Amino acid sequence: MRAAIFRGAFDIQVEQIPDATILAPTDAVVRITHACICGTDLWPYRGQASYQSGWQIGHEWMGMVEDTGSEVRTLKRGDRVVASYDFCDGTCEFCRKGLDSACLQGGLWGFGHEGGQAEAIRARFADATLVVVPPSVEGDEALLKAILPLTDVMAAGHHAALRAGVRSGGSVAVIGDGAVGLCGTLAARRLGAARIIVLGHQPQRLTLARQFGATDVVTSREEQAVSQVIEMTQGGADAVLECVGTEETINMAVNITRPGGAVGFVGAPHGSGQIPLGRMFSYNIAVSGGLAPARAYLPELLTDVLAGRLDPSPILDLTVTLEDVAAGYVAMDQRHAIKVMVRP
Amino acid sequence: MRAAIFRGAFDIQVEQIPDATILAPTDAVVRITHACICGTDLWPYRGQASYQSGWQIGHEWMGMVEDTGSEVRTLKRGDRVVASYDFCDGTCEFCRKGLDSACLQGGLWGFGHEGGQAEAIRARFADATLVVVPPSVEGDEALLKAILPLTDVMAAGHHAALRAGVRSGGSVAVIGDGAVGLCGTLAARRLGAARIIVLGHQPQRLTLARQFGATDVVTSREEQAVSQVIEMTQGGADAVLECVGTEETINMAVNITRPGGAVGFVGAPHGSGQIPLGRMFSYNIAVSGGLAPARAYLPELLTDVLAGRLDPSPILDLTVTLEDVAAGYVAMDQRHAIKVMVRP
Repeated sequence: MRAAIFRGAFDIQVEQIPDATILAPTDAVVRITHACICGTDLWPYRGQASYQSGWQIGHEWMGMVEDTGSEVRTLKRGDRVVASYDFCDGTCEFCRKGLDSACLQGGLWGFGHEGGQAEAIRARFADATLVVVPPSVEGDEALLKAILPLTDVMAAGHHAALRAGVRSGGSVAVIGDGAVGLCGTLAARRLGAARIIVLGHQPQRLTLARQFGATDVVTSREEQAVSQVIEMTQGGADAVLECVGTEETINMAVNITRPGGAVGFVGAPHGSGQIPLGRMFSYNIAVSGGLAPARAYLPELLTDVLAGRLDPSPILDLTVTLEDVAAGYVAMDQRHAIKVMVRP
Repeated sequence: MRAAIFRGAFDIQVEQIPDATILAPTDAVVRITHACICGTDLWPYRGQASYQSGWQIGHEWMGMVEDTGSEVRTLKRGDRVVASYDFCDGTCEFCRKGLDSACLQGGLWGFGHEGGQAEAIRARFADATLVVVPPSVEGDEALLKAILPLTDVMAAGHHAALRAGVRSGGSVAVIGDGAVGLCGTLAARRLGAARIIVLGHQPQRLTLARQFGATDVVTSREEQAVSQVIEMTQGGADAVLECVGTEETINMAVNITRPGGAVGFVGAPHGSGQIPLGRMFSYNIAVSGGLAPARAYLPELLTDVLAGRLDPSPILDLTVTLEDVAAGYVAMDQRHAIKVMVRP
């Protein structure tokens, strides 16, 4: 079968690899119909993360079950399934607590495991990891495209909103106008936020942010952005969604949070780990978040997508074939696309 | 009247100052019967905080109402009252949310305001700041001594426990065997924690920690302490109470928290503000806490003290008169006392 393989910085190749097959009785083999390139994939792509040459890449995907291991109970051949970016056993302490991202036997697709930018995949712990989508969606490409972000970025936006304590009627600031920030905006609106201020720099993305529920956008940077949000909210936003992960944005997040409020951070942190602990202390500002438990969130978010109440699909503004996946990486790296859908 | 005055590092003088008097209609004048020296007072005492010569000092106190301003409604002359370390107006957004420590008109006793290590005090926002204690306590010195820590350190320990998410049956690690750490231990037991591991270095304090509910004590330092707690809890404590505030202890707190758990931090942070954001992200470890809303907690904690269910008084292991308050500072600075009670 064909699969995207990381061969070094700025070098993604589509190569022939052995067909996906059942290796454990809890596995399924899934024919991939839709996948994405994630902002996280850009870290190895740009040579900024340790990723080995020869590893498959891609952790956001859905498809049709082709085969199941002898212990798989909830899936059968022909089922459409959506995966979370992390596989998980569904039975460990953390899975039972709804924190599948910390599963004791879990991991991310790609990163030395099977990858999602491929024709098919061996899906580990299939019962625990995969969620069946009703057959009524078949043929409805718009709906399928709306489901796809639930694999990762929409879950991350939702996680940021929950961890930041977004509440009906409250004020929210979202740092970042990338796919996660835009999904965070949707999540904040879904949870009933009255005011949603999105901080970003890309006009087209900020236009989309407004469609997704942003009531205000802030395009200034650093201290000026902080002063602006503090002024607009008369003291800070109740909830701040940190969807970038740089040292600057994490600090900004704490600095624009209202006393007693919280930062929900879902941008993988890069930098020294410096944070304004003094402000957190004086004003009881919590910092909470991390890798989203996407599997735990999938059923609830899927219900809303199927009911037409949630549609993150506009973030997928470029589609490529699997053979052209390298062009997708170029487009995302150069910010010509917010997020790329891959059709094997 | 006589009051403790900060005159510079290692120099606390008891001086004659003008009598406390009503300046605003919301004031009360309180004759102080009991006060404390706080670990926080040691920062200026040791010259490690900006504190001006001539300022009064002391923020933990209780006493008898002597006079009330024309707008005071809930207090009358002769009432015994206990204060929180922070005064607050009781009406602002943050007071209404139960976060009196962020009151828009609030502040700490001392720090340029009236201080608690004195014969009497002008209590601002008396209705909001002071809590009346029933007259039945009069003459019961043991009970009065049990109430006194509610002004600050017991509230801080309770805050750490709440923010760390201590739950019945869970595991807790408490970093610090000072007054706050000991109160955090009491708070964790009160909230039903099944296992309470206290990290500290002073044998006498750790003995008290065991009396307060510690099931285990850890006396090793740094990485060794981290490994020990990780091993004892098979992966980290559900809730970690950070009651010291150094860079080392804040990092340790994150490093011994179980995935999905939280650090409740109440030690005023000193250091660069470096924190293991990568671990927080990978394992969804929240950091939450700060200045405790002691006023908000007072009624609930007072109820338990009056009912005999909570008694932090053993932390007050030395008593001095106001005239001898300087000796109390020496004892705390040299760790001859955990916490000093001052009787004007």
